[in-house]
This record gives sequence, C-alpha cells and structure tokens, in this order.
Amino acid sequence: MSDKIPFASPGTSAALEEGTALTPKFDADGLVTCVATDAVSGDVLMVAHMNAEALAKTIATGEAWYFSRSRRALWKKGETSGHTQRVIEMRIDCDQDAIWIKVEQIAGACHTGCRSCFYRAVSLGKAGAATLEFRDARVFDPKTAYRTKD
Amino acid sequence: MSDKIPFASPGTSAALEEGTALTPKFDADGLVTCVATDAVSGDVLMVAHMNAEALAKTIATGEAWYFSRSRRALWKKGETSGHTQRVIEMRIDCDQDAIWIKVEQIAGACHTGCRSCFYRAVSLGKAGAATLEFRDARVFDPKTAYRTKD
Repeated sequence: MSDKIPFASPGTSAALEEGTALTPKFDADGLVTCVATDAVSGDVLMVAHMNAEALAKTIATGEAWYFSRSRRALWKKGETSGHTQRVIEMRIDCDQDAIWIKVEQIAGACHTGCRSCFYRAVSLGKAGAATLEFRDARVFDPKTAYRTKD
Repeated sequence: MSDKIPFASPGTSAALEEGTALTPKFDADGLVTCVATDAVSGDVLMVAHMNAEALAKTIATGEAWYFSRSRRALWKKGETSGHTQRVIEMRIDCDQDAIWIKVEQIAGACHTGCRSCFYRAVSLGKAGAATLEFRDARVFDPKTAYRTKD
C-alpha cells in the first residue's frame, strides 16, 4: 500500500462537492486535516493530519492512523500508549480536503494525559489580553503511558 | 489591529502546553487551523483557518472571522450570506496550533447550502473502493444566499 495512492485524483469543484467518489484533495505536503471527535460526548479530541496511506489504513481497519508532520512518519494512534481510536463514522467535507472521524477513544487522546487536546478555554471579549482557563483534568499519567518509547 | 500581531510569541513546549498565556503557534503561512462545531448538536460544521487578525477579531467580537487561503483575505463568516457564527466557547489545543469554537450557526455553514460541510459519510472497510453517502439535506439555497457577491 505504501507506494500506491489508492485514491483517484480530485476532479472539478462540482465533482468534489456533489459526487459520491472519494477523491481527497491532499495539500502540497500530501496531507489532509483530520478532526477526531468523541462519538459519545461530541467533544473535539484532536486535530491531526493524514497522508494517503494513513487515510487508506483508517478506512480499511476502522482504527485511526495519522501522519506525523514532525516525525515524517505514519503513526497508528495509540500504538505506544494503547489509547487507540475506533472509528464509528467518517465524514469528508465539501471540497474533500478535511476529514471528520467520530471515534471511541480509549483513555485520552492527548499526550499530556487529558481526554482531549483542547483542555483550555480562551477568554472572549478582550483580544489583547486573552488568557487560558483549564477545563479538563488528566485522565491518565503520560509518564506511564509513553514510557516504553519515550 | 491589522499591522500588529496582538499575541506574544510561543514559548517552550511546557509553556505552550501548561501555561495560561494565549501564544498561538501560527504556521509558515501565519495560520492556525480552526474547527467550528454546532454548540447544540456537537456536529463539526467546518474546518477553516485563522491568521492573527482573524483570531483577534473573533476573540474581541465573539463572532467568527477566518482567513481565506484561496482569496488571501480576512473574512467574516456570513458577511455575504448572513449565516454568521456566534462563538459560545473557544478552546485551544495542547501545542496552540489549533482552535476549536462552539458556535451558534445561523442557517448553514457550508457554501453548498448544507448545515455542515461534512454532509457525506465515507464507507469504511474497503479502502480501495470507498464511496460517499449523502447524509444531510440542504438547509438553504446557495444561489439566493450568495447572489450579491457571486
């Protein structure tokens, strides 16, 4: 699978928006953005990226795979920590450059130990002096979860 | 506001992840990714981008502003169609390069006329031949909504 991109090339805007063919519009780095939400609570858990291989593996296996931009590597979510994501539903957006997956998240999605990467709220109404407020507690200890590969 | 970036520069990973200062990590194009979800249903409505000015205006006004990569322009959501997004809550992720806003969406977020840009589901389990299934109907007529500027 790694040498072949198993998706047809994107067509016209009309084909992208109104068609039933999955023809993802990968960016110059070969990536689409992926938003993972909690299938139960609806909370956004994380925003990451998929290359063609990660997207194909996610579709084929029903488990979330991503592509790490910093490590330049394919990455199965939870491969070290066990905190995998089972995909309940996958959606694609109008111009097919963003993916939304609703997932069953084991433990937590964030490497900090929180359920969601979005554990802080931004205060509204004061642009110049916006501050962050912690909203979520840790659900696991990252030192333990990642010790095998850290 | 347009000449000044009203945010301090990102610090260390620890400061980004554990701090209470909003120091967004804009990418090489000066953008962060923004996910907008429906404050009522929890559905992902759209994925777009914000530059520093769009983020500052969103925080200051409580209405969603974005930066269009294709038009290279600041853009108030709904400025043509009236389909604005009132921000109920804003969250930022662990490394401060992605924003999540929960919004009250007027009519629909997608230029196709759908409530959400993610109106099609991807069939799982068959990577090579994945197809799309329409799940959402139009909630407005895009020909009417965008006629003033199209």
